[in-house]
Amino acid sequence: MTSVKNLKGIVPPIITPLKDIDTLDVDGLEKLVEHILAGGVSGLFVLGTTGEFSSLSYRLRNELVERVCKQVAGRVPVLVGVTDTSIIESENLARKAADFGAAAVVAAPPYYYATGQPELVEYFEKLADRMPLPLYLYNMPMHTKVMLEPKTVLKISENPKVVGLKDSSANMAYFRLLQYTMKGHPDFQLFVGPEEMMADAVVLGADGGVNGGANMFPRLYVDLYQAAVARDFDKIHALQEKVLAVSSAIYTVGKYGSSYLKGLKCALSVMGVCDDFMADPFNRFRKEEREKIEQGLESLNWKSLI
Amino acid sequence: MTSVKNLKGIVPPIITPLKDIDTLDVDGLEKLVEHILAGGVSGLFVLGTTGEFSSLSYRLRNELVERVCKQVAGRVPVLVGVTDTSIIESENLARKAADFGAAAVVAAPPYYYATGQPELVEYFEKLADRMPLPLYLYNMPMHTKVMLEPKTVLKISENPKVVGLKDSSANMAYFRLLQYTMKGHPDFQLFVGPEEMMADAVVLGADGGVNGGANMFPRLYVDLYQAAVARDFDKIHALQEKVLAVSSAIYTVGKYGSSYLKGLKCALSVMGVCDDFMADPFNRFRKEEREKIEQGLESLNWKSLI
Amino acid sequence: MTSVKNLKGIVPPIITPLKDIDTLDVDGLEKLVEHILAGGVSGLFVLGTTGEFSSLSYRLRNELVERVCKQVAGRVPVLVGVTDTSIIESENLARKAADFGAAAVVAAPPYYYATGQPELVEYFEKLADRMPLPLYLYNMPMHTKVMLEPKTVLKISENPKVVGLKDSSANMAYFRLLQYTMKGHPDFQLFVGPEEMMADAVVLGADGGVNGGANMFPRLYVDLYQAAVARDFDKIHALQEKVLAVSSAIYTVGKYGSSYLKGLKCALSVMGVCDDFMADPFNRFRKEEREKIEQGLESLNWKSLI
Amino acid sequence: MTSVKNLKGIVPPIITPLKDIDTLDVDGLEKLVEHILAGGVSGLFVLGTTGEFSSLSYRLRNELVERVCKQVAGRVPVLVGVTDTSIIESENLARKAADFGAAAVVAAPPYYYATGQPELVEYFEKLADRMPLPLYLYNMPMHTKVMLEPKTVLKISENPKVVGLKDSSANMAYFRLLQYTMKGHPDFQLFVGPEEMMADAVVLGADGGVNGGANMFPRLYVDLYQAAVARDFDKIHALQEKVLAVSSAIYTVGKYGSSYLKGLKCALSVMGVCDDFMADPFNRFRKEEREKIEQGLESLNWKSLI
Repeated sequence: MTSVKNLKGIVPPIITPLKDIDTLDVDGLEKLVEHILAGGVSGLFVLGTTGEFSSLSYRLRNELVERVCKQVAGRVPVLVGVTDTSIIESENLARKAADFGAAAVVAAPPYYYATGQPELVEYFEKLADRMPLPLYLYNMPMHTKVMLEPKTVLKISENPKVVGLKDSSANMAYFRLLQYTMKGHPDFQLFVGPEEMMADAVVLGADGGVNGGANMFPRLYVDLYQAAVARDFDKIHALQEKVLAVSSAIYTVGKYGSSYLKGLKCALSVMGVCDDFMADPFNRFRKEEREKIEQGLESLNWKSLI
Repeated sequence: MTSVKNLKGIVPPIITPLKDIDTLDVDGLEKLVEHILAGGVSGLFVLGTTGEFSSLSYRLRNELVERVCKQVAGRVPVLVGVTDTSIIESENLARKAADFGAAAVVAAPPYYYATGQPELVEYFEKLADRMPLPLYLYNMPMHTKVMLEPKTVLKISENPKVVGLKDSSANMAYFRLLQYTMKGHPDFQLFVGPEEMMADAVVLGADGGVNGGANMFPRLYVDLYQAAVARDFDKIHALQEKVLAVSSAIYTVGKYGSSYLKGLKCALSVMGVCDDFMADPFNRFRKEEREKIEQGLESLNWKSLI
Repeated sequence: MTSVKNLKGIVPPIITPLKDIDTLDVDGLEKLVEHILAGGVSGLFVLGTTGEFSSLSYRLRNELVERVCKQVAGRVPVLVGVTDTSIIESENLARKAADFGAAAVVAAPPYYYATGQPELVEYFEKLADRMPLPLYLYNMPMHTKVMLEPKTVLKISENPKVVGLKDSSANMAYFRLLQYTMKGHPDFQLFVGPEEMMADAVVLGADGGVNGGANMFPRLYVDLYQAAVARDFDKIHALQEKVLAVSSAIYTVGKYGSSYLKGLKCALSVMGVCDDFMADPFNRFRKEEREKIEQGLESLNWKSLI
Repeated sequence: MTSVKNLKGIVPPIITPLKDIDTLDVDGLEKLVEHILAGGVSGLFVLGTTGEFSSLSYRLRNELVERVCKQVAGRVPVLVGVTDTSIIESENLARKAADFGAAAVVAAPPYYYATGQPELVEYFEKLADRMPLPLYLYNMPMHTKVMLEPKTVLKISENPKVVGLKDSSANMAYFRLLQYTMKGHPDFQLFVGPEEMMADAVVLGADGGVNGGANMFPRLYVDLYQAAVARDFDKIHALQEKVLAVSSAIYTVGKYGSSYLKGLKCALSVMGVCDDFMADPFNRFRKEEREKIEQGLESLNWKSLI
């Protein structure tokens, strides 16, 4: 049950409910996890970009992983983000995650220095060797300033610990070339980040989506995933319309860059799931933006989406 | 026949066959046009990024448009790129294109200064008013340093002369949000540039592809388009595999940036279609790279793709 | 007099006074030229970034060059921007400029496609060969997406037609490395664009400044240049303070990107020198921003700066 | 002695000598510190970009700070980099640094998410409040994807704990505008990172340089600083020539991005100061590049520079 072998479907990157910069909103976290699991998701991804991983202390990261693993208790596999600029800290995070019962780890390239493709190959080979769990690569060029090129992924994937990749580039030409490059490795899993293109990715062969909106409406994304697998285009169109409506209503308030994160967390607060406190350098929406999120949720008739 | 009303399918962005920096390879051009038309394409796009428009003198651009329009003679609509940093020069190009019998024009944002979204709205409103032909927008952030955001496109599209958009961003999340934003305008046409994601785009609703590879193998892209329209997934998979093989073999030789353009033109030369002279600031491949293209074409069993 | 041999000092990049998108403000232009010449400048640079070159029709560009050359009538050398994405159009502009009596031309890298350093070497070698006048290189990475690396400049400078470089990168580490790389070519002239660092550049060896603020207050920049040459630090400090006050007051109104250009043109209009019409894709400041420029000029006690 | 009040001069950002990814080269570190102190520097900056801070475990960072503080023993102030994406981890680092006897801390913006200027103001206000030591801001747009705009710095500097800024942008126009913006705060210290422009910065008013080359040749940079303070231009020219020769010979081997770091560490190894092991994602130079560094050092007649 908690293995990532043949993992498919929706694996939400969960937000991190906080009471303040170094205190989990424990009640909110519990609610959130049950809220998401009730939607039929295939796994949980903790400490991703959506989870504000980089803004959190290591102490809190470990506490979060422990709590989520305990609560999930094997119902679905828990994937843990160990992206770090220090390979040693990635290992520290991963060892604890393994102890707590996580099923796999996920790592983007180090994100302070700019790196070249050969450096990435070596980096991920070393990282994989240090990991006590299966490793997913995480392509996130917006934040890491580098693309994991298909040939780079192919080389890294020779390490049997590397089991898949989550692509958040939104670049579908890249995604298809990557799929083509990896065609000799049918077990290598490919997940896609941006929910607006999840159905596209799945219809022509992705294994699933790691979609932030599934924090709010897990069932919607699971249904869309299943419609995409079934190639039921009437259903895809109807559900995709709703997914795009969510994007348009919730992720476009405030300034670009953090509007996705802030809108998502604010919406979960409005929905009564958890606190919307954000870790520095971000701040929760103020009254004016929150009202726009409230209106957005209303326009979505959000209770119908759960 | 030469109207762009309800234009759908493959509209190849044709390369510009040159003998030297200011001389068309007239024979090559004629061969190329017939080669492409024989593949069943729905239109031709002259003077796009693939056509090295910005590197060519205005004299040559006009000669090219005149020759192509004459040769095509109404068999399919000819779309002409009028992207320029000067709105007056765009108008000059467009007026001649209209005289020669072109069906529509295509324009990306001005590409020297960085522009904001409100500036783009005004710019395209003014541009459209000056155009004697229907206008397609051209989203090409890699070269213009700006995205045509969905709300910007929606505003610009209020001008009835603006009939569609070609998106070369490769960003599928953007493409779906754009489609969603434009859903009240079902006649607004959406084409996608990168051929690696053309089938994806069409399966869930794009009108077609403006794919460079169709210079070489027009029938392949037309077949893939039709398979995508028909949602014949066995066919899609088989053809997409070939399209991705073309990308991998032909567009990855030499340094990134111009490798697509140089590889494409070199391949057409190897295939005996036209000269591979490139306008400054680019140069044709030298012997070593040309040999790689020859091997790439052989590995594709290229004659089978025509 | 009109040779650029040993050119030193302030060479203002003049704005292009317009009545509408394709009509020069002829009176304004005449006033502007005399206003600038009265300040003791060493030359005029027409059709640079500050001159909105890329937004203007070629017809208007030629008219502008002709008028400026006629009016200046050899009092100082006129440098003409021939930056273009087409090497043929650069040549067309340069030939007319030579006919009109310009002293030199100035060219940045082509700015649509991204280019590599070896491509830039070949490009500028070919461009120089086509030029009927001495050629200045123009490093402008913000708009052209590429730096002219020192070794690239060294190679290009082997062509005797290449006489200097204007650096608008604002990168002083680059500028000093360039100077070091060119130390075997003492005649190669180095000018700096950003006026905020002109004194710095000159104190340790630059030949002068191509500073937009000299459209408004030519004498101020000439005085600062001379103080820098004389290493009169009391004067430098006093004048630099004013230059920085101009920057802060005039170039920071409105949105980043075009705020420098819009502020400069608006200020010249407020000062009664010429019209502030801007070529697409820009627009003149509206009332609110204009009032801020008025206040800025007042705070500068601007009449004292002329 | 260990206060940063009125700190001026050269404060080298020391490299971190390593035996392997999580083991300090203790002997090398001791040699390095004495080698640098013997050059007459005004302070040491530990855990900067040059120190590979982001690649190191927190355990090793703390060990490094403890060892350096102990060894320096008050001879000069030790500044400690606490740049982090988590404000809590910055605080953890800073508290230990204070315990070990560091004089100040240095922090760049968080570098995973993109941040806006108002977010930076709030972030640094909160960070400063958590710091047990005076705080220097660190402008490093290449790695953090954001500039600390002058008005942002002015607002942050209202917090009395914020005592200065190190600018590694290489943008001299920015540096002068910042200086102008801060002119009401004469005690606010401004240091410049790129050694190629240190003399420039100091001649017109910077407080000093944080220059990587001072790991190799501390006396050279101290002498150049003093010549700049004294405005002794013959000396400046002679010394600057050597500084630029160092840059050209040592920082340009291998691929851009990490060539500065790798070259610097390799040179120190060739000079017999310490190990050149590099923390992931980088690797020490191989034989071929090392030979180029050896030749570079020879061409500099490096023993004469110590």
